[in-house]
Order: sequence, then C-alpha cells, then structure tokens
Amino acid sequence: MTTTTRLERGKRALEEIDGQAGQHVIDALADIAPDFATYLFEFPFGDIYSRPGLSLRDREIATIAALTAMGTAQPQLKVHLEAGLNVGLSREEITEILMQMAVYAGFPAALNGLFAAKEVFAARQDAAFSAP
Amino acid sequence: MTTTTRLERGKRALEEIDGQAGQHVIDALADIAPDFATYLFEFPFGDIYSRPGLSLRDREIATIAALTAMGTAQPQLKVHLEAGLNVGLSREEITEILMQMAVYAGFPAALNGLFAAKEVFAARQDAAFSAP
Amino acid sequence: MTTTTRLERGKRALEEIDGQAGQHVIDALADIAPDFATYLFEFPFGDIYSRPGLSLRDREIATIAALTAMGTAQPQLKVHLEAGLNVGLSREEITEILMQMAVYAGFPAALNGLFAAKEVFAARQDAAFSAP
Amino acid sequence: MTTTTRLERGKRALEEIDGQAGQHVIDALADIAPDFATYLFEFPFGDIYSRPGLSLRDREIATIAALTAMGTAQPQLKVHLEAGLNVGLSREEITEILMQMAVYAGFPAALNGLFAAKEVFAARQDAAFSAP
Amino acid sequence: MTTTTRLERGKRALEEIDGQAGQHVIDALADIAPDFATYLFEFPFGDIYSRPGLSLRDREIATIAALTAMGTAQPQLKVHLEAGLNVGLSREEITEILMQMAVYAGFPAALNGLFAAKEVFAARQDAAFSAP
Amino acid sequence: MTTTTRLERGKRALEEIDGQAGQHVIDALADIAPDFATYLFEFPFGDIYSRPGLSLRDREIATIAALTAMGTAQPQLKVHLEAGLNVGLSREEITEILMQMAVYAGFPAALNGLFAAKEVFAARQDAAFSAP
Repeated sequence: MTTTTRLERGKRALEEIDGQAGQHVIDALADIAPDFATYLFEFPFGDIYSRPGLSLRDREIATIAALTAMGTAQPQLKVHLEAGLNVGLSREEITEILMQMAVYAGFPAALNGLFAAKEVFAARQDAAFSAP
Repeated sequence: MTTTTRLERGKRALEEIDGQAGQHVIDALADIAPDFATYLFEFPFGDIYSRPGLSLRDREIATIAALTAMGTAQPQLKVHLEAGLNVGLSREEITEILMQMAVYAGFPAALNGLFAAKEVFAARQDAAFSAP
Repeated sequence: MTTTTRLERGKRALEEIDGQAGQHVIDALADIAPDFATYLFEFPFGDIYSRPGLSLRDREIATIAALTAMGTAQPQLKVHLEAGLNVGLSREEITEILMQMAVYAGFPAALNGLFAAKEVFAARQDAAFSAP
Repeated sequence: MTTTTRLERGKRALEEIDGQAGQHVIDALADIAPDFATYLFEFPFGDIYSRPGLSLRDREIATIAALTAMGTAQPQLKVHLEAGLNVGLSREEITEILMQMAVYAGFPAALNGLFAAKEVFAARQDAAFSAP
Repeated sequence: MTTTTRLERGKRALEEIDGQAGQHVIDALADIAPDFATYLFEFPFGDIYSRPGLSLRDREIATIAALTAMGTAQPQLKVHLEAGLNVGLSREEITEILMQMAVYAGFPAALNGLFAAKEVFAARQDAAFSAP
Repeated sequence: MTTTTRLERGKRALEEIDGQAGQHVIDALADIAPDFATYLFEFPFGDIYSRPGLSLRDREIATIAALTAMGTAQPQLKVHLEAGLNVGLSREEITEILMQMAVYAGFPAALNGLFAAKEVFAARQDAAFSAP
C-alpha cells in the first residue's frame, strides 16, 4: 500500500474521530514541523485506528484511560474526550472510565481527568445551544 | 450499604474478573498488610468494578491500556491481561489495545505490553493442554 | 462499620486536613461525578488518613513528597502544601521535603514543587493580613 | 566549606542511613562511574540529608513515599525501606506510608511497595536470626 | 576543590548555557529556598555540565530529549530549548529531537515538546526583531 | 514513497543501529503481533531515524537520555546503549549522558542507567574476547 493511501486513510480516520480538534493540532504543526503532521495522519490514524480488529469506540476507551493515567497529556486528553463522544461513548461511560483510573493511577489522575471532562462537556453543551 | 456488603461484593467481583491471579495477590498481603487486602476488595472491586455504567469488558480495555501506558506495573498488567480474557476480550482485541499504546506512550511501552501478553497467553495455552 | 460511618469519618478528616481547599474539590465534582466525591471522602480520608498507625503530620510529609516527585498533580500538590501547614508542618520543613525531591525525581520536580509552595505560602500570607 | 568536607559528611550520613546497602551501590559504581559515587556522597548525603531542618526519620518518610509513587526505582526503594528502619521508623509506620500511596499513585504502586517491604523485612528477620 | 569554586564554575556554566532564563529561576528561588539556588549552580552546572567528557551541544540534546519524554517539566523544557540554541543546536536539529520522542514517549509528548519549541522560537524571533 | 520502501529503509536502518539486538525484538514479535514488527521497521526506523536532519550519533544521545529518564524501558535502554556504541558514541560519552540524567530525573534513574550500561559494556567485552 502506498504512502499516499496511508495518508488519505489517516486523514479520513482523524476527521471521523477527532473532528475539528484534530485539525487544529495539524494546523498548529504547519510552521514548525509539517512532516510531523504527516506522520500523525499516517501512523496513529492511517495505520493503528484504521485496523479492523477493534472498534473505534473501544479504541477511545483505551486512549482516554491511558492519557488520564499518564497525566502528562492534558491537551490530548481533551481532544480524545471529545473523540470518545464522537464515536459513540456516552458522557456516563466516559465518567466511569475516568473514575476507574483512581484505582490504577491514583485519585489526582482521576480528578484531573474528570475536571478535563467537565470542561469538554460544558463547551459541547454551549456549542449545541448556540447552533442555529 | 454496610462495609460487609462492599467486601462481599468486591470478593465476588474480584473472583469473576481476576480469578486465581487476584486471589494470589490477596494471599500475599496476609502477613504484611491484611487491611490492604480488604481495601483492595472494597474500593476497586466492591465500589468501582461493581458499578453498572460500564461493562466488565470495557473496564478491562481501560485497565489494560492504562497499565501498559504507565509501564510501572508489570505484575498487575499480567493479572489484567488474564482478566481481559476472563471477561470476554479476545487475544486479538488485547493485542490491538497493546499496539495502540505505541501512539500514546511510545513503542517501548507497547513492546513491554506485548511481551507480557505473550507470556500470559502461552501460560494459558499450557494450562489448557494440561487440563484433564 | 457502615458506609455512613466511613463517609462521616472521611468528611471530618478531610475538613481537618484540607480545610476549604478540599471542600472546593468536592463541590466541583457535584455536577460531573457526585459518586466520586463520596469515594474521595470514604477511601482516602475515611479509610486511610483515619488510620491510627501514622500521624497526620507524617502522612502529609508522604503526600507532599509523592505528589512533588510524580509531577503530574500540581493542583493536588497545592492542596496538600496547605494541608501540611494545617496539620503542623512548618514552611521550613515543607521546603526541606521539596528540595529533597531533587535527589529522587530530579531538579525540575523540586523546582516545580518549590514554586507551588511559593504561591501557596504567599496566598496564605495575604489571607492572614486581610483577616479582620 | 570544601568539597572534602562535603564528601566526608556525605560518607558519614550514607553510612548512618543506608548502612551496607548504600555501600554496595557505591562499590558497584567503581568500575563504571567512580565520579558518580562521589556525587552521590556529596549532593544527596553531604548536602541534603545533612541539613538540620528535617529529621532523618522524616526524610525517609518522604523518600519511601516518593520512590513508591514513582514506581521506577525498586532497587532504591528497597535500600530506603531498610534505611527507614535504620533511622527509627517502625515496620507498621512504613506499611502505613506504602498503603497511603494507593491514594496518590494507584493500587499497583502501593502493592509493589508492599511486596518490596515484605522482602526487606523478611531478609532482616533472617539476618537477625542468623546473628551470633 | 572548594565549594566556592564549584559555585563560581556553576554560575559561569549556567550563564553560558541558559542565559537570562536560568537567572530568572535563580532569582525566583531567593525568597523561598536560597540554598536550593546554590545547589542548582553547584551540582547540575558546577559538577555535571562542567565535565569535559561531553560537549554542551551534546548535553543539551540529552536534556531536551529527557524533559520532552518525561512530560512533567514544561518550564524547564522551555529554558533548555533556548539553551540548545545558545550552545549551537539549530532549530531544525531541535525539531528532529522532539519528533523522535514520539517513538519513545508517544505522540502527545512529542507534540507538547513541538508546541513548546514553537513558543520559544517565536519569542526569540520577536526579541531579534525588536533589538536596536 | 511506497510502504515497501519505508519497510526496506527501516530494515536497513535498524540493522545499522541496533544490529542483532533489534533483530531479536523483531523475531520475538512474530507469533504475537507480526504487524507491529512491520510498524517498528517503518515508523521509528524507516521514517524517523532515516531523516537527514540529525546524525545517528546525536539520535542515540537523545534516545539513551530519554529511556534513562523515563525509567520504564530497561530492555529498550540496553538495546540503545549497544546502539550508541554501534553508531560512534564512546563508553565515556554514554556514561556522561547517564550521569547527567541524575539532574533531570533523579539519582535512581541515573543509577539504573549506569548499571544497565555496566551489563551491556561487560557483555560486549566478553563477546570481543571470545571472537575468533
């Protein structure tokens, strides 16, 4: 399979999963590391998320859990809290995942995840209300 | 709800999820911190895993992802790779989760997760062959 | 012991240790994960901090050291820098703990802890001066 | 104060705190990085542990908590579990510190700390029984 | 070698490497932990960076890589992105180091490093344009 | 550029950098996640290490520093200590990088890196003596 195909497939997957938030990340890379934007389309989205063996909903459970537990990637966690909603997780399911992280990474990790979700859910609410 | 109930519920959940591997952890705590065994039944299993808002299968996706990404809990990761199989994840799905962690926590984290899975899957294979 | 008792005991412990800062965390959870506020009272404060085997002063040494070394929980570190003062640690003792973390988690972890303490100490000074 | 003084003071502090375990680390550095053994005497022990503002007992609470929470320094954690006993912490107090880490760094971190303590306490028991 | 010499040598090294950014850190420590400013001059800069076995350029490659991978030290990473430029790394080389961290610490760590570099490079550009 | 090219280029780069140690990792993946072996050739080695903007020697400084600071990837650190020697770093330079990590990630991280290097250097010595 050619690189162009991976790139195209990655772009479609990123749009489906992360929507505008993903595109903002790509845009922000343009003047510092445009090749890294290409890699971001290709490997995570063109290679990994496009594999058939796990649903996008299940993949977002894994990503939200990992980023919450790591605690070093707040901006990316917010993108994936949004992505989780995009691919079919409910707010309640996301909240369960975040609370569960208290067991594995401690209460501060879970709290920081829950407060990130509070922000993301509120922003989405606002967007919904302001839509025509 | 009384503490006894949380403890009972946690014991049932731990047995369903982690099976013998969970019991070994509890046994090993007996002479150093028996109260911690009680907390382990009560909070993670009696409180969190027993909540109805997320299936055990989804909870294990989250736990496997988090422990792989953290990279500081190999023994617990092995218990939960086993637990994942117990609650309905296939080997292929678990492998997908582990590979995905390369994106969020780097290739070494994913590799160490995959090699842990290789061990757990092989041990299970052996146990299956040696069963009467 | 019933859950109500753990909850009550946890609420008293949280108030003694974290004071208003702890209450703000609990309040912020109300609309996203009220059950998690209950767990936060019950396990960390009702179970762990209420155990007789270690003084609250010693427990805060441990918490301040851990959160500084981890470096992923700045908001919680600030709450516990305040809590340390509440349960009898002096500013000088807290500063010693933070400096010591350079040895185990590196100079950046210690620096980020010291700058958090600088903020917390200054806010407390202001509050003291503005009190009637 | 001259470097020789820091070195001497660090050597005395390391012997008081870590005993033989500390010396083994120093010896093991001899053929790969002897200067690093000097730094280890000088900064952690000659500078930090020798400061008067915090007792050695309190310093070991901080170190045991931090290393348990980090989860990346099992050999050093074992040295400091031993050191904690050397400077006056009881086994019960150490166990309390380790259990408390479940709150801040998750149950796996606390479990791995407790199992390290189990090993250290048992080895010490054996040594006590085999002493003339 | 006396402590005064280490201190002097560290001050010179810090000024050569980190320039004003390093001095701001030292100044900010004055009212909370002045001794820690001394340690910061002495051990990292007087001892380590002053050793002849590795060039300052190579040392900054190591530091930028480590801080990006750790993801817990954004302020210090920014100081060392600036330091990297001071000791001869090009923007392109720094960008390569940051992108490479995606392999070892995940894409979020690399992205957060790249966005920190974007800020540092832009601030330097502004300073260059506003210089007389 | 087609995927085959990335794969071929990655295989050549991996052989040049990691030699046999890299091949062992690839072989070990064959029965659990063969696709991951392909990704490992393609992204880290075919994409990143093959970029012209930074020498292999400089890339290994970055990798050794990052893996030592993270402290969660001992097997991969050993592979890259070997790789560092393969692409032109001296034992003394590698030791300098490892010691420097004490500043950023703490003394335990540096010690664990130095002891890994001690093992790798000794094994290489043995291999050299036993070569025909």
